[in-house]
Amino acid sequence: MDHFKYMQYAYEQAILAMNINEVPIGSVIVYKDNIIGRGYNKRNTKKNVLYHGEIEAIYEASKFINDWRLEDCTLYVTVEPCPMCAGAIVQARIPKVVYGTENKKAGCGGSILNILQEDRFNHKVEVIKGIMEEDCSNIMKEFFKNLRKK
Amino acid sequence: MDHFKYMQYAYEQAILAMNINEVPIGSVIVYKDNIIGRGYNKRNTKKNVLYHGEIEAIYEASKFINDWRLEDCTLYVTVEPCPMCAGAIVQARIPKVVYGTENKKAGCGGSILNILQEDRFNHKVEVIKGIMEEDCSNIMKEFFKNLRKK
Repeated sequence: MDHFKYMQYAYEQAILAMNINEVPIGSVIVYKDNIIGRGYNKRNTKKNVLYHGEIEAIYEASKFINDWRLEDCTLYVTVEPCPMCAGAIVQARIPKVVYGTENKKAGCGGSILNILQEDRFNHKVEVIKGIMEEDCSNIMKEFFKNLRKK
Repeated sequence: MDHFKYMQYAYEQAILAMNINEVPIGSVIVYKDNIIGRGYNKRNTKKNVLYHGEIEAIYEASKFINDWRLEDCTLYVTVEPCPMCAGAIVQARIPKVVYGTENKKAGCGGSILNILQEDRFNHKVEVIKGIMEEDCSNIMKEFFKNLRKK
């Protein structure tokens, strides 16, 4: 699968978050070479922590697949998932996650915890990282630089 | 606060899950002695992993508080939270979680991981466990016993 191609779509979602002054993180879910779920962070806009990109994408993909098991899907996300999103990915049994850049403060794909690859859970995820790393990292840095200016 | 009183409400939610043949786990969120969020597991019914009791309760409570920060709330849940729900609790900065019985297979309030009390996250939760432990455990055992019979 062309990880760069799909990460660009996740990155486009991150731009949508940036445009509404939200931390710019975006996600898409791919099934049989089609995007069946997408989402971007809108936690402040919606006043609800559940509006992370990955959660929105999982919600949409589950509707498409008509099952809570997203077994043949790949989730792309611009930034390493937080504990909530990593947990949702494991719950949905998504076999593969591709992320752009690490989150050293809350990442649960290896940075703080590795929820995605915990032997004692009943599902373990294949993780590929560093796709479009610079772009995914730069948009975050730009966002926080602008935030500090305000 | 009367933990037993509020755990009974969470337990009532678990009964609602049992009644629709879902793994019987229920949750309520309490703010200033009022229940402002409630939910029960309906993962199979809704065909979506996001329909765990805690997630529903957080969604409802956030609407009530009109903020993603649920800072003065206590979350009650009959069973130790999974990684997704534990992560959502940390994200929502809920200060206190009271749970009934442990989940030795996927619990993230200490059994497998302790997402609720990870020093490196920006929020750490006070955890009280064992309230109505026998009831919360027995309803789970009964559910799985009936499931095996079918």
